[in-house]
Amino acid sequence: MSQIRHALTVKREDDFAKWYQEVISAADLAEESGVRGCMVIKPWGYGIWERIQRLMDDRIKAAGVQNCYFPLFIPLSNFTREAEHVEGFAKEMAVVTHHRLISDGKGGLIPDPAAKLEEPLVVRPTSETIIGDAMARWVQSWRDLPLLTNQWANVVRWEMRTRMFLRTSEFLWQEGHTAHENREQALAETHRALEMYRACAEDDLALPVIAGEKPENERFPGAVETWSIEAMMQDGKALQAGTSHYLGTNFAHAAGIQYQDREGSQQFSHTTSWGVSTRLIGGVIMTHGDDDGLRVPPAIAPQQIVIIPMLREAPEDAELIAYCEQVRAALAGQTALGERIRVLLDVKPGKAAAKRWDWVRKGAPVIIEVGPRDMADGKLAFLRRDQLWNTANGKPAFTYPAHADFVAEAGAVLEAIQSSLYEEARARRDANITRGVTEWQAVADHFDKGGKYPGWVEVEWSKPTGDVLEQVVEKLKALKLTIRNVPRGGKAATGTCIFTGAPATERILVARAY
Amino acid sequence: MSQIRHALTVKREDDFAKWYQEVISAADLAEESGVRGCMVIKPWGYGIWERIQRLMDDRIKAAGVQNCYFPLFIPLSNFTREAEHVEGFAKEMAVVTHHRLISDGKGGLIPDPAAKLEEPLVVRPTSETIIGDAMARWVQSWRDLPLLTNQWANVVRWEMRTRMFLRTSEFLWQEGHTAHENREQALAETHRALEMYRACAEDDLALPVIAGEKPENERFPGAVETWSIEAMMQDGKALQAGTSHYLGTNFAHAAGIQYQDREGSQQFSHTTSWGVSTRLIGGVIMTHGDDDGLRVPPAIAPQQIVIIPMLREAPEDAELIAYCEQVRAALAGQTALGERIRVLLDVKPGKAAAKRWDWVRKGAPVIIEVGPRDMADGKLAFLRRDQLWNTANGKPAFTYPAHADFVAEAGAVLEAIQSSLYEEARARRDANITRGVTEWQAVADHFDKGGKYPGWVEVEWSKPTGDVLEQVVEKLKALKLTIRNVPRGGKAATGTCIFTGAPATERILVARAY
Repeated sequence: MSQIRHALTVKREDDFAKWYQEVISAADLAEESGVRGCMVIKPWGYGIWERIQRLMDDRIKAAGVQNCYFPLFIPLSNFTREAEHVEGFAKEMAVVTHHRLISDGKGGLIPDPAAKLEEPLVVRPTSETIIGDAMARWVQSWRDLPLLTNQWANVVRWEMRTRMFLRTSEFLWQEGHTAHENREQALAETHRALEMYRACAEDDLALPVIAGEKPENERFPGAVETWSIEAMMQDGKALQAGTSHYLGTNFAHAAGIQYQDREGSQQFSHTTSWGVSTRLIGGVIMTHGDDDGLRVPPAIAPQQIVIIPMLREAPEDAELIAYCEQVRAALAGQTALGERIRVLLDVKPGKAAAKRWDWVRKGAPVIIEVGPRDMADGKLAFLRRDQLWNTANGKPAFTYPAHADFVAEAGAVLEAIQSSLYEEARARRDANITRGVTEWQAVADHFDKGGKYPGWVEVEWSKPTGDVLEQVVEKLKALKLTIRNVPRGGKAATGTCIFTGAPATERILVARAY
Repeated sequence: MSQIRHALTVKREDDFAKWYQEVISAADLAEESGVRGCMVIKPWGYGIWERIQRLMDDRIKAAGVQNCYFPLFIPLSNFTREAEHVEGFAKEMAVVTHHRLISDGKGGLIPDPAAKLEEPLVVRPTSETIIGDAMARWVQSWRDLPLLTNQWANVVRWEMRTRMFLRTSEFLWQEGHTAHENREQALAETHRALEMYRACAEDDLALPVIAGEKPENERFPGAVETWSIEAMMQDGKALQAGTSHYLGTNFAHAAGIQYQDREGSQQFSHTTSWGVSTRLIGGVIMTHGDDDGLRVPPAIAPQQIVIIPMLREAPEDAELIAYCEQVRAALAGQTALGERIRVLLDVKPGKAAAKRWDWVRKGAPVIIEVGPRDMADGKLAFLRRDQLWNTANGKPAFTYPAHADFVAEAGAVLEAIQSSLYEEARARRDANITRGVTEWQAVADHFDKGGKYPGWVEVEWSKPTGDVLEQVVEKLKALKLTIRNVPRGGKAATGTCIFTGAPATERILVARAY
């Protein structure tokens, strides 16, 4: 068996963190901006985000949620109204204190002391407190409920250690904020949003996820319940890919979101919030990337098929390009995953082979190459990014159908790639969840000695609170572990709590995480 | 002739500014947020923005421009590199100085003195300087050019006097930034963007505009040429609705955007930038609004047709709703302006007449009402928002077609509304441009005594610069006038400069403006 010469310099198994950085750069997704903790999202990375936005936004609108836009700046006093909330965010907020610059007399600029704000403004780290103000104005009667809003926005959390897409000081996200008459309706919305995230992650991003409730210590600051979807990366670590919070009446009390109920008395609304961010792109990279770069699931690929004509910088090129344009137009008329196929004819200058490897690294699902002989034969050569190599000879696994045949099957090919990426990730995820561990020492051994990628462990516990929970968290922390969530719809607990020895009440997933 | 009872309390002719505020509130477009100068954009207003975004983004992508995302924060030192640029923006920039809050010991919060940034960060007022940094990294050779990028983002300019949509401290926009090999190519891009804006304004927003070059004193800080599209509001004032700048090599020098040209020597890139913002919505309101509220051009209406069943809170309602749902589905299968028709079946509780007036104020292009008798007859009643009143009897001008007939003609009706809004605005605009004025005194008289809405005046001038231009600007300022632009493709000047008496070189438009 020939040696495959992979398209990246770093292999996942050699240095996963370094590999991650190389994929981002080799696939031209993003780069450091020079501004601390902020990245520049480049066209291919932003194109993936636009696809995620489009698909998620369709799901959000289908649920009757309406998009709005709320201010970037939040007055400091808004934050002090919900004690846990401010406690959770105060340490990482960017604060605007001045509204003008003046010369420092040395060719530089300084904030103008005469233009100091009376009340500093915080750059939103999340918008519960400012949207709560609006909800208090908008909600008067039960007839105004449910109030279902969402915004697509940038938010800022001043992170000390940043990592592109996964943890950046500024990131892009959507944040849904809803108000309801009672606990039941708000919880139903919390679960609707959670299920929407599961469906988007699995069906659009091909990320298998486990939806469940976060333990008390991992709740969103100010929430009564926090639910998450958790995805397993190829290094076995967990990535929290989306969260949905039931906020009880905490923010309603803070902002005064009150309504007259059906019986005429004043009640506080029960609110929810839920969000996903550009972090999802980090999850796509670490789930679907391989030693040749990124593999983008077709549903979120800005271009699903790239056609590369083998140009020779000769007069015959015109005919070849015309032929490829015919193929492009025919493919663009087909559908895959319920939408028109997105096809790019790449006529940029450069050698076809070099361009092929660029698109391999970027992870275009299907790459077509067409040379003069293919044109003469009415054929084309195509590569499936998820089946890149012929392992028998170590060469790219091209297939050579007649072009009309390929046009007819292109939709099915893209759908097959979408499924195969999902199935591959799901099989790997399932193979790396260890169940039935009943002794703490076995958990410790598993993570101490369980190899490089120990994955996740499912254990039973008694859902301790307060000090006991704190001890559990410390015990886990010593092994760099966290509780990811209590999987929704999981099996009932049957044994004893692995931490306390008390009768267990539920099953939890324990893992290292991003 | 009966008296029409309009749906707003303020008429345009009585108090245009107050009328503007009432439309925003009556159409539920936006509201003050409580954060100084920042507004909340509500679902109907944001829906209009989403439509504008979608149509403009299609145009941007069709031109080969790629969307990216750049940081919200810009280091102060970036600004000092281009002297005119910083001069233009320093007075209105929000400055981040701290990255953490701590308790003030009195239950409040203050910026943590221990978390002061070494170098303050500015919240972007525009992104030339930060995108310039990226371009300097991305551009090495002539092969990297043209570099065509765009971002959809929020920006902040600390305005002293704000007005919803027209001038807010934070606003939403797109900013295109491109780099080219030479002046000719950069100028061609400047004009491509200008023409794209003209087409979007006229074809999508039904805003007739005049495209032309801004005089020197109105240039974007740091630009060599600034071009604009100018729209006339119903009070005769001008609204700058979009700008496109040729930046020469000013920003390339500041950021070091250099490339190796085809002959192998180092050159500075010629760059451009161009933007439109949520201000466009203010233009739509002041162009198409009437004494009954907003009229949204169908191309940018979040819902083009609203169906209101005349419900009686009785068992028969179910049948009526089912009938209306059939009408809705049939209409949603039709196309108008090249897209599927957007139809809403409004089954919210409430009287049909009250709901009708809500949709009139919001400006839905077509409003359908269906009662049990209409259903029995297979008919429906519809209102065109642009032909709302039967002036003979002072009642809403309903038409009663068979429902199948209406479905067949709905696309044509929407297209007719789109054209009629444009034609109405264009006729008004053209009627309010006064040409052939050759004496300054006549201009002064026109604006002093020319009635409430003096519109625009076209005059010839000799394009003075420096001190002479400054005197001209002061002279205009005394009458609250500004030079809007030198219309592109306008007639050649034939007389003398109205300001200097020198031979005139071009025609300019002079007006009051937002």
